[in-house]
Amino acid sequence: MSKSTGHLFLQSALALDGDLMPLDRFDDWFQERKQAHRFQLEEIPFAKMDKWGFDPSGNLRHDSGRFYSIEGLRVGTNWGRIREWEQPIIVQPEIGLLGFLSKRFDGILHFLVQAKMEPGNLHMIQLAPTLQATRSNFMRVHQGRSPPYLDWFLQRRNSRVLVDILQSEQGARFLRKRNRNIIIETEESVEVGEDYCWLTAGQLLRLLRRDNVVNMDARTVLSCISYALGEAGAPSAVTGQFGQALWHSFQVLEQGQHTNEEIISWFTEQKFFYDLDVDRMPLADLRQWERTDMEIRHATGRFFSVMACRVEADNREVAAWTQPMVKAHQQGLCVFIVKEFKGVLHFLVQAKVEPGNFDVVEMAPTVQCLTGSYQNAALNLLPPFAQYAMEATTDQIRFDTLQSEEGGRFFQEENRNLIVEADARLDLDLPPNYIWMTAGQLKKFIQFNNFVNVQARSLLASLSFTEPDLL
Amino acid sequence: MSKSTGHLFLQSALALDGDLMPLDRFDDWFQERKQAHRFQLEEIPFAKMDKWGFDPSGNLRHDSGRFYSIEGLRVGTNWGRIREWEQPIIVQPEIGLLGFLSKRFDGILHFLVQAKMEPGNLHMIQLAPTLQATRSNFMRVHQGRSPPYLDWFLQRRNSRVLVDILQSEQGARFLRKRNRNIIIETEESVEVGEDYCWLTAGQLLRLLRRDNVVNMDARTVLSCISYALGEAGAPSAVTGQFGQALWHSFQVLEQGQHTNEEIISWFTEQKFFYDLDVDRMPLADLRQWERTDMEIRHATGRFFSVMACRVEADNREVAAWTQPMVKAHQQGLCVFIVKEFKGVLHFLVQAKVEPGNFDVVEMAPTVQCLTGSYQNAALNLLPPFAQYAMEATTDQIRFDTLQSEEGGRFFQEENRNLIVEADARLDLDLPPNYIWMTAGQLKKFIQFNNFVNVQARSLLASLSFTEPDLL
Repeated sequence: MSKSTGHLFLQSALALDGDLMPLDRFDDWFQERKQAHRFQLEEIPFAKMDKWGFDPSGNLRHDSGRFYSIEGLRVGTNWGRIREWEQPIIVQPEIGLLGFLSKRFDGILHFLVQAKMEPGNLHMIQLAPTLQATRSNFMRVHQGRSPPYLDWFLQRRNSRVLVDILQSEQGARFLRKRNRNIIIETEESVEVGEDYCWLTAGQLLRLLRRDNVVNMDARTVLSCISYALGEAGAPSAVTGQFGQALWHSFQVLEQGQHTNEEIISWFTEQKFFYDLDVDRMPLADLRQWERTDMEIRHATGRFFSVMACRVEADNREVAAWTQPMVKAHQQGLCVFIVKEFKGVLHFLVQAKVEPGNFDVVEMAPTVQCLTGSYQNAALNLLPPFAQYAMEATTDQIRFDTLQSEEGGRFFQEENRNLIVEADARLDLDLPPNYIWMTAGQLKKFIQFNNFVNVQARSLLASLSFTEPDLL
Repeated sequence: MSKSTGHLFLQSALALDGDLMPLDRFDDWFQERKQAHRFQLEEIPFAKMDKWGFDPSGNLRHDSGRFYSIEGLRVGTNWGRIREWEQPIIVQPEIGLLGFLSKRFDGILHFLVQAKMEPGNLHMIQLAPTLQATRSNFMRVHQGRSPPYLDWFLQRRNSRVLVDILQSEQGARFLRKRNRNIIIETEESVEVGEDYCWLTAGQLLRLLRRDNVVNMDARTVLSCISYALGEAGAPSAVTGQFGQALWHSFQVLEQGQHTNEEIISWFTEQKFFYDLDVDRMPLADLRQWERTDMEIRHATGRFFSVMACRVEADNREVAAWTQPMVKAHQQGLCVFIVKEFKGVLHFLVQAKVEPGNFDVVEMAPTVQCLTGSYQNAALNLLPPFAQYAMEATTDQIRFDTLQSEEGGRFFQEENRNLIVEADARLDLDLPPNYIWMTAGQLKKFIQFNNFVNVQARSLLASLSFTEPDLL
């Protein structure tokens, strides 16, 4: 990303409020949007789904063959404690489009944000990118209206592309799913629909400190932003020791504790060492998974289940529909442990195998796990650093919110997102699949697809250069 | 890659001869190596293979389940003229290791090259990297000896890693196969086996101008080398207008005719636009493919066939074995069309879908096709730029040799490798899946795996900074 683009994004991130939708007006507007629309969601038996059903091998599909399907997956790996299992997996071969339309007002970049209903959302409405569309969506397989603002991304009149990268989604739930993350800056005047408003990156960073307001799709697109300015010093709006160390971290693109070549070699070693064998199999044949009229669940009741729901909404392309969803049965935890080395903040990155990964391992947060399953379990079953993170004291915690997973597929799933600054207790002797990287290095790898996973990107997108009490 | 490493590689590339094995001695040595060993290869019926056989679904496998298998693949894509077909494919999930051990002599980096027999090689012996091993190889599934020099790559005593990247192999023949390409520099003294010798990169570049001498595995590892020096001027050993333009091309890492962000956006667009649906299927069920006692071939006799062979060799880990191989029925052509823009050489890169690609498209040479199938066909069936390349005049041609595909899997397969400098006849209005890139930009993308395909890498590895009459 060019320095001028980095500067543009940084100025937007440091603009903690905006004139177009000041945050003291935002709450009313957001509340209004929730009340303006009528939504209804009910869990239904699989048999009541419309145009969705089980095919002969027990996979759950749409009659058109489009959208997505839920199938079975047999997994074998030499990574982690559990070496073999079977599970349902969401198969969605089409690449989706997640796009922010952006525009400068008084020189500050603003993002056109949508108050969007998704059936699985906690509180139904969250802040989304300007556009969320699958190709089926905008080819209008569902016969509905074309998504608003789609033409801005397809035609690109008088606009330039600031970001345009493929990124992965949850490897534990999706089989090799990717989205195209795109940010377009336009100089044209834009008509702002009633569910849309212009926010600065700084405003979004403040809203990210609230639970379940900024949706996953918005977080992943924002994570593709770089704040690298080249050699310039930190702007005065960067405050506090953490803000300064973070700002430096974004400027270090090539060599922190490790060079990028060393990181690539480390990552190559992980891919070389770890196996991931996945075989798609009929959903009906999964060992240990049971199907009732209402759900497909694991015999132990753990992990997640597949369910069906009926949705009514007055502001979507289609007024009512049914669809399958995935419902988590356990709380999740995503943590980056961070630490300054020579004044530059570093992130403790984990090479993690997940069954749906495009390429065996991705760079994940220091800790990414289900915590429910560990609560009553012996502590030695916890993955590395999880106990350390859960025992972090208030003065170590730089970020702590609940964030939702994608409401189009996941039913009210939230994960605790934590940034923990290391203290002297942290063991610096790392397991071989962990490495320290700067924010700038992570951004470099984000530029090339399928390196950094969605949980790590989401956490990165939440970091702010200002002291928390300003936010 | 750091500037000092770039300088090290460049000095080695400009060392057109070496003291340890001067090229006027090399020919005798190479001939000796061929005569020192006894090899025998015969085509045999599938039924005569030892430990290999057809499983119930007709797939060809080793009894151990290791090494590789030959299975069926159903392919659907919206790229190119043919939208649906079925074909045999080589499945080899294990990542192989291709490694050069290197060492400085009088300050010049030399590579430890092996005169290696592979059953499919034209002339049986070609120059290979120090180490070619699959994990099955060095876990010694075949019960043979451990490959020489393996410990240098596993232990890495007193050595540093210069290159360590995963790279793809032929997407038309392998299903998502990758190798770990690694170059290690050591300061220890190295015992040189009788089939090994030390050559500079410059010597290898001269040998690359001969047909079928430097094998594919050596070419792919060498392609990971960068010659970027930062801001310094061209060394005096860089000669001729083409050499100068090429040297500049290697120095331009971020912005040629397009920035890297623009290239990433272009590549994202190709992945978004093109579909590649592949389904593994039983080899026995492939439409249009027939199995006889001796081969599996396409009903038209075109493309390639699968055959079995028996090999005897006195210098391999195992003295005799049988294995299936793939035999091409048509000649191939790989061409980069190059052109100077503002004194910097650019390469015309194609985004190409191949069924075994890890991620839908890879960056391929301008032309990469089978020519046999076109010889009697109407010219309008030729892919873009193929006719232009085949009609290039002598003064446009910067490189023209026959190079072998990997002799461990492919039976005497060679492709014509061409570098053609564009003249005024070239239409600069490109189809949407073509883009101009500098050599430095291609090297940047090579650093991140699965961007640049093996044919493009192999051509890049062949380019030299000196006038051809010096070579």
